[in-house]
Amino acid sequence: MKEVERLRALRKSAASLEIEAILITHLPDVRYLTGFTGSNAALAVTASKAVLFTDGRYTAQAKEEVKGARVVIAKGSALKEACAWLEESAAAAGFDPANTTVSQLEMMRSALSGKRRRSFFQPLTQPLAADLRMVKDEDELRAMTAAAKLGNRVFKAVLPHLKPGVPETEIAAGLEFFARSMGAEAMSFETIVASGERSALPHGRASSRKLPRKGFVTLDFGVILKGYCSDMTRTVHLGKANPEERHAYEAVLAAQEAAVSAIKPGVTCGEVDEAARSVLRSAGLAKYFTHSTGHGVGLEIHENPRVAAAQAQILQPGMVVTVEPGVYMPGKFGIRIEDMVAVTGRSRKVLTPVDKKLIEL
Amino acid sequence: MKEVERLRALRKSAASLEIEAILITHLPDVRYLTGFTGSNAALAVTASKAVLFTDGRYTAQAKEEVKGARVVIAKGSALKEACAWLEESAAAAGFDPANTTVSQLEMMRSALSGKRRRSFFQPLTQPLAADLRMVKDEDELRAMTAAAKLGNRVFKAVLPHLKPGVPETEIAAGLEFFARSMGAEAMSFETIVASGERSALPHGRASSRKLPRKGFVTLDFGVILKGYCSDMTRTVHLGKANPEERHAYEAVLAAQEAAVSAIKPGVTCGEVDEAARSVLRSAGLAKYFTHSTGHGVGLEIHENPRVAAAQAQILQPGMVVTVEPGVYMPGKFGIRIEDMVAVTGRSRKVLTPVDKKLIEL
Repeated sequence: MKEVERLRALRKSAASLEIEAILITHLPDVRYLTGFTGSNAALAVTASKAVLFTDGRYTAQAKEEVKGARVVIAKGSALKEACAWLEESAAAAGFDPANTTVSQLEMMRSALSGKRRRSFFQPLTQPLAADLRMVKDEDELRAMTAAAKLGNRVFKAVLPHLKPGVPETEIAAGLEFFARSMGAEAMSFETIVASGERSALPHGRASSRKLPRKGFVTLDFGVILKGYCSDMTRTVHLGKANPEERHAYEAVLAAQEAAVSAIKPGVTCGEVDEAARSVLRSAGLAKYFTHSTGHGVGLEIHENPRVAAAQAQILQPGMVVTVEPGVYMPGKFGIRIEDMVAVTGRSRKVLTPVDKKLIEL
Repeated sequence: MKEVERLRALRKSAASLEIEAILITHLPDVRYLTGFTGSNAALAVTASKAVLFTDGRYTAQAKEEVKGARVVIAKGSALKEACAWLEESAAAAGFDPANTTVSQLEMMRSALSGKRRRSFFQPLTQPLAADLRMVKDEDELRAMTAAAKLGNRVFKAVLPHLKPGVPETEIAAGLEFFARSMGAEAMSFETIVASGERSALPHGRASSRKLPRKGFVTLDFGVILKGYCSDMTRTVHLGKANPEERHAYEAVLAAQEAAVSAIKPGVTCGEVDEAARSVLRSAGLAKYFTHSTGHGVGLEIHENPRVAAAQAQILQPGMVVTVEPGVYMPGKFGIRIEDMVAVTGRSRKVLTPVDKKLIEL
């Protein structure tokens, strides 16, 4: 009954902020707190009750999945029924402004009786569910370790197919086929295969471009297992790397390893980012590192915490973050190396232990 | 320069509603109006100017892609810079409440100077960009026809692999591999493979369940080509269908064909829905048809118009909708048949012309 413990933790956070009731509509939060995986849900939580509202498509599924909350199959809008229930159960309710559209808020208010309409729903000043989700429990760590391992196997399976003349899309297709065949529920984001000078695009979705005879190929992909995402990047080289390429690769690898080594309980995310950035600064490459070092990962591919410059969030055991510095030389080449790293009681565990030495194919 | 025409049409809609300026942040709308495909953009449009704000990752790409708008690479938040520019250029601006979160609206307001902060941004009462996007131009129809044809080829390629004992996930993997290999940029949604009694789940994502010796298998999938989505569903039978199964299949097919035949300019979406529903009513199966008949499709897999009961939207030449009635007998079986249909000058064109007679494998 881990869901029941999570709901208890949510109530404790709410109580500490003097929030009487909460409306949860972000589906990954609903899944985390109740186990429900349907595509339509509104979870209303008070100090003593929790009710999940969904629709008739999910009658059987909700009954099977939901733990710790009563299920109501709404006749009309699940969201509006949840709001009406909250109005009867509390004097005010918090909602998640980052995952609620202006139209949804309007609809939420329209479900209330006139006089409290404007003031009843208050935006949460802290993302309570997202904060809880940052720290993974044992079940979650097990699922994420399995997802990361599957990612490793997929990477190894696709390596022999990286050959000059093969279109990037075909590599992506093969990679996704291996992932699916090995049991992945889905990919956790659109697979990135960026070769040659396209490797200088940090977000180079696979294109019809053919792999070059010589040059880098960046593979950035993830799989989903039991709802949990993996995320890894490796950059390999077709043919022999020239000295400039090798220098850049070694610098990114050193930056990546420095950031991984910086991870332990008590350190801030900003310090991890700086560990990577300072190595690239020494190598004269910091200006080509144009994004942040990493992000939390879990039920969603991008979660809190952000591993970026000046981020004050302190790492705690159970957090899982990516570490993915890169350098991008426009028109020439790019390199990114990414692992998923779990914070442990005293240090860290790399969940994606594929070798990171430069692979020349 | 179709983008320029689209921007002109947007301005005309805005002028007719006396809206002086618009902020567009929904990425499919930005792509439609300017051609930009990056993941971060805010498009500010006044009667005489259009400026697209994005970030440094997209400097080269924006220059290459954007038509009809000036590009500004924001130093900080692209969204906030767009808002500040709008404040200097207009007295008020409309925004899309269905695609703007409460947090984003707060951020938009924070970019304004104090006195106009509360009143400057007004929610659009009509989804202007979504309304324009309902009617596809020739380029779009060409892309969608190509996507639908690719979907057909994928379906035919995967058919020989439907055999008892093969897990649903393996069918999904094969289907996605064929799609990618044939040039799809991506799948347009998570592939549905639902077999045996799982076919009674309208949203049965592929599971580890093995295809049964006898029974229905529903395949619902789509591909993306040049940004445009296809969507089709076929339900085939492993072994010989029994009389009840055959009766239900024939009823769904008759309902689907009735709805397709109802499509022409001037007809409402509600009438198309009713055409399908009334056939199933006569067959005594209406209560097992638990969802709406279809939806618009284009740059997004679900767009306006909705093809559902009582929808007053009138069909116009250039609209593309799905027609996908189904019946779902809980614990027994389900059947859904779906085509993509374009409204033409006088009638309709089915973009997914795979035969719909019951296939028994």
